[in-house]
Amino acid sequence: MNYQLTVTVRSQGLYDITHKVVEKVAEARITQGLATIFIQHTSASLLIQENADPKVLRDLENWMNRLVPEGDGLYTHTQEGLDDMPAHIKSALTASSLSIPIIEGRLALGIWQGIMLWEHRHHRGVRDIVVSVIDAGLQA
Amino acid sequence: MNYQLTVTVRSQGLYDITHKVVEKVAEARITQGLATIFIQHTSASLLIQENADPKVLRDLENWMNRLVPEGDGLYTHTQEGLDDMPAHIKSALTASSLSIPIIEGRLALGIWQGIMLWEHRHHRGVRDIVVSVIDAGLQA
Amino acid sequence: MNYQLTVTVRSQGLYDITHKVVEKVAEARITQGLATIFIQHTSASLLIQENADPKVLRDLENWMNRLVPEGDGLYTHTQEGLDDMPAHIKSALTASSLSIPIIEGRLALGIWQGIMLWEHRHHRGVRDIVVSVIDAGLQA
Repeated sequence: MNYQLTVTVRSQGLYDITHKVVEKVAEARITQGLATIFIQHTSASLLIQENADPKVLRDLENWMNRLVPEGDGLYTHTQEGLDDMPAHIKSALTASSLSIPIIEGRLALGIWQGIMLWEHRHHRGVRDIVVSVIDAGLQA
Repeated sequence: MNYQLTVTVRSQGLYDITHKVVEKVAEARITQGLATIFIQHTSASLLIQENADPKVLRDLENWMNRLVPEGDGLYTHTQEGLDDMPAHIKSALTASSLSIPIIEGRLALGIWQGIMLWEHRHHRGVRDIVVSVIDAGLQA
Repeated sequence: MNYQLTVTVRSQGLYDITHKVVEKVAEARITQGLATIFIQHTSASLLIQENADPKVLRDLENWMNRLVPEGDGLYTHTQEGLDDMPAHIKSALTASSLSIPIIEGRLALGIWQGIMLWEHRHHRGVRDIVVSVIDAGLQA
């Protein structure tokens, strides 16, 4: 079972999408299985990170912006904006897909884990995600 | 259903393997499910990236070669060649496995997404990949 | 079928957990399918790497410690220790989940591939992992 999901972004940054994924998994009504989240873009990515202290996400973003700065003389792909090539590199360094087990009907996330969409561009817009749920309970 | 796939590489670089993965997924003849691509090596990796402007892939490769240069004095694992330890590091920073939903019998890739094998060594050779297809339609 | 697995860590470093994952996969007694490994933490991660020369793992760790040093003035999330924010960044750069096909009852790892838990903090403790096994043989 595959579920489409959209996330509205306002600017570069990390967006906690855990509740949206949890909702889709609940719809699937399975007990044991696996949920896979896939992002259909190459300038935004997925990440599991701490959802407690917002400073973690801010530091992460600042660190990544320092590692992959805009305006680097190395870039030749520049016609789509200063933020485009850094966005592709950041996506390559993080994940396009994430898989999380479903145990007793719930995503088996650790206590501090949240699922984040990492928007690497500065634009406002909508990002498309697919949540794929596989039932392993049928297979027992 | 698991399908073996081989990719011939001529040198370091990114190889678009989307069509090869699409072929294997078509063989599976399923409507709803999940495809997982796994690379059986630790000096080459997998990546979903933009398949439109070739400059994106070139910039990505040049950026990574600058971040993880050959001949770094830090390396002690040097007996397999100057390109070997950088290849392991680049593999660690990218993906060994990728999962992509299958919707209406097709890989649910975004419009600009291609599946790439990233060869991190300079050699010519053959790389082994497994495409694993899980049917979620049976489970509805 | 989902299997809980714990790994005791003594300090920062890479721990080969292949045998533990292999054991869980053997319990599932399936022929064709997919194993997914998920770590329930955000300051430790998963990696597939060479298991032959221990220098590879040492160089990898030293390289990562140089890229993401402790005490970087950029960090504002500092109250959980000098090693905490670097641990979150290293986790973001590596994997929280890995998927490996199961062929003829065995994990289809390449000849030099091992599954590693990468502990990014200095503490001693126990890390929680879930191994999720999906049977694709039923679906043939």
